[in-house]
Amino acid sequence: MPLKNKGWIVEVFVTLKASVLDPQGTAVQRALHSMGYTSLTGARLGKYFRLHFIPGLHRTEVEKQARRMCEKLLVNPVIEQYHLKINREGKRSA
Amino acid sequence: MPLKNKGWIVEVFVTLKASVLDPQGTAVQRALHSMGYTSLTGARLGKYFRLHFIPGLHRTEVEKQARRMCEKLLVNPVIEQYHLKINREGKRSA
Repeated sequence: MPLKNKGWIVEVFVTLKASVLDPQGTAVQRALHSMGYTSLTGARLGKYFRLHFIPGLHRTEVEKQARRMCEKLLVNPVIEQYHLKINREGKRSA
Repeated sequence: MPLKNKGWIVEVFVTLKASVLDPQGTAVQRALHSMGYTSLTGARLGKYFRLHFIPGLHRTEVEKQARRMCEKLLVNPVIEQYHLKINREGKRSA
């Protein structure tokens, strides 16, 4: 199938800003410590979105739309930060 | 700083298996559709962990420990799948 007939997959990684406390991450770290994994020095939790887009869009248009979706709905910019990865469908992701 | 004095960061991406319904993802997709993003054909939601490890471990040992953590605590293998990315601290991640 020609590449331009394939859709896009945008992976969005959302994490709490470094300055924001992450109680869920701390809970995970403590649980793992108490299970004996003492070489763990920290754990933070985030969200991971996989967004599928129709074929026929240009990569820059996909990125523009994805960033707008993040800013309007998926990410809380006060406490969270995000980054994106854009791939054609069918390619091995993150 | 020599590389071996740097710790490790393991990124864990947890997603629902393709055969498992993802109501949260569907809700996100519908919300974005109703906001006018009609080139979106699907959305799935997952979890994203960043685990920090002490320096002085070999990469294979870090991977072994991280996989065990996933199987014992972080991932529900009945409905979820995961993949890992291992990097030295300070390197640009996923």
